[in-house]
Amino acid sequence: MKLLEHTIRHVEEVVFDARGDIASRFKAFAIPKGSLGRLEELATIYASIKGAVTCEIRHKKIFTMAGDHGVVAEGVSVFPQQVTEQMVQNFMAGGAAINVLARHVGARVIVVDCGVAVHLEAKQPLKIKKIGLGTRNMANGPAMYREEAIRSLEAGIELIEEEMKEGLDIVGTGDMGIGNTTPSSAILAVLGKLDVDTATGRGTGLDDDTLQRKIAVIKRAIAVNRPNTDDPIDVLSKVGGYEIGGIAGLCLGAARHHVPVVLDGFISTAGALIACAIEPKVSNYLIASHVSAERGHRIMLRLLNKSPILDLNMRLGEGTGAALGIGIVESAVKLLNEMATFHDAGVSDPYKGASPM
Amino acid sequence: MKLLEHTIRHVEEVVFDARGDIASRFKAFAIPKGSLGRLEELATIYASIKGAVTCEIRHKKIFTMAGDHGVVAEGVSVFPQQVTEQMVQNFMAGGAAINVLARHVGARVIVVDCGVAVHLEAKQPLKIKKIGLGTRNMANGPAMYREEAIRSLEAGIELIEEEMKEGLDIVGTGDMGIGNTTPSSAILAVLGKLDVDTATGRGTGLDDDTLQRKIAVIKRAIAVNRPNTDDPIDVLSKVGGYEIGGIAGLCLGAARHHVPVVLDGFISTAGALIACAIEPKVSNYLIASHVSAERGHRIMLRLLNKSPILDLNMRLGEGTGAALGIGIVESAVKLLNEMATFHDAGVSDPYKGASPM
Repeated sequence: MKLLEHTIRHVEEVVFDARGDIASRFKAFAIPKGSLGRLEELATIYASIKGAVTCEIRHKKIFTMAGDHGVVAEGVSVFPQQVTEQMVQNFMAGGAAINVLARHVGARVIVVDCGVAVHLEAKQPLKIKKIGLGTRNMANGPAMYREEAIRSLEAGIELIEEEMKEGLDIVGTGDMGIGNTTPSSAILAVLGKLDVDTATGRGTGLDDDTLQRKIAVIKRAIAVNRPNTDDPIDVLSKVGGYEIGGIAGLCLGAARHHVPVVLDGFISTAGALIACAIEPKVSNYLIASHVSAERGHRIMLRLLNKSPILDLNMRLGEGTGAALGIGIVESAVKLLNEMATFHDAGVSDPYKGASPM
Repeated sequence: MKLLEHTIRHVEEVVFDARGDIASRFKAFAIPKGSLGRLEELATIYASIKGAVTCEIRHKKIFTMAGDHGVVAEGVSVFPQQVTEQMVQNFMAGGAAINVLARHVGARVIVVDCGVAVHLEAKQPLKIKKIGLGTRNMANGPAMYREEAIRSLEAGIELIEEEMKEGLDIVGTGDMGIGNTTPSSAILAVLGKLDVDTATGRGTGLDDDTLQRKIAVIKRAIAVNRPNTDDPIDVLSKVGGYEIGGIAGLCLGAARHHVPVVLDGFISTAGALIACAIEPKVSNYLIASHVSAERGHRIMLRLLNKSPILDLNMRLGEGTGAALGIGIVESAVKLLNEMATFHDAGVSDPYKGASPM
């Protein structure tokens, strides 16, 4: 609890002092004003968070947070629970989509066991931050104790603290957990004060009947647990998940250290909703990589007032959207650092009223 | 004319034989079915064009095609004409946005003088394929002779032929030419049978009065020249540009050699419209990287039945959107090549009916 409280207390406002300088720099570049569109915006966000006009992105790390969910007993997923652990092995072997995409953008994948239902051994690139062997079935009672929810948040914060020592310029979030769209939808419904039907989608590909069952399960979980909307830790503990708490912790920890966070899809954004409900200033450190095909993600992004970089109809998780998003953010930052100005390039500057024509 | 005719005759249908194999491969990957969204689609398009399930993208080349436009005499751009040549120098020095983004995705930039208004010397990375010292003012008569339009198309084809010798796995298109949204809008209006008002936007940032002048100039150019809608070479010669013809030639040449083309924005897509009007089969080799903020680009993409990968409010040209698009296409192809299957990864496959649960 001490680490969590300390972290929350130290999340600062984003330093906006750099904005004027960055805008001047973009204005001096030999391009039509505003023609880089969202790339200028992304570079400005990144540089503002860092509080420096020129900055290099060297250490890119994607945290793929894994956990299991007792609620799978209700039959809310196409996949059996052991797939969580099998996919963790796949991440470690380097054969998953996140491994391919992270290599493509030059990011490292850190796989984290936040609460997989079987025992796993720490072995690169796997880190063990295990809170429990899967959450309890939230349809019957709280998914976890309040103390466990706090530990899951602190697990994410610890990961940031550990990686800061080696260097951490940008964080990508990711998740793996069979059944975890169910708690994510529950979090959205509770914190967004929405109908469960609106907040709930097909996850990895449910048919109509199973979707209806999933909705009923979430409604039951909320009715049974009565999470307190004004207490995000209560919401996390009653209808959340270990990896979702871990992702929320990543957001808190990264914000506390002025490190930009590129969010992945639905589950990651559920984590971000928890983090921002705990400390609203965290939002300024978050960049939405993409909008998922999972129903409800668009609503989450609207709640966070974030506009996604990509819309590629993806719904895989793992951090795959975050990886692509990191590639785009890095390209934007490189533009800010490497482009020639009108003056450098000897190009007539029409904005100076000194055009040689 | 012989090269053009030969090329057109040899554009084949895309080999769809590979599609079944690619779909099977994606189905075997340890991911929920369809969860990679457009990445699966992009990998499938790329592999289908190449006619091979596994393929590596090694030689990525972005052709930034430069040309000047006599119509700038009518005051249709914020920038003076000499900026075309100044920016060519900037591309050669490596300080432009396209240089930064091409480096970011590991692509080479080939700068091509298709018709800059001053003499330039060939010097890496500049290639000279000069048709003339800028087009004529299309508001008073044809922008070029028919023979020049053909030579501009053949210039693009020659570039592809030359680069095929060294290796060419993917082509990005790009443009530089002060005033070139004016001929591009004219091409859209003529080939798309649209009102000039609908087809014309603010380019590099015109105010309301100048936009109205630009619209009037395009209307006059079409009235004076009466381009023949059924003859795309006539349209190119009367209201086009050298670099636009060059881009159309790139599309034709790449299609003839089964090389995927990633289109940049408004000007590149005007070139693609010409190429597809000449030979509709070319369309199957084209991928739209992004939708530009330039009004009319969305309409062009609809005419070509293309859905852009990115929507980042960019409107710079040079090939900047194509560079980012190439990065995403490559990530998709890597997924197809490098991902582990359910079987490889030892992950329970729910689609086999052999789930161990």
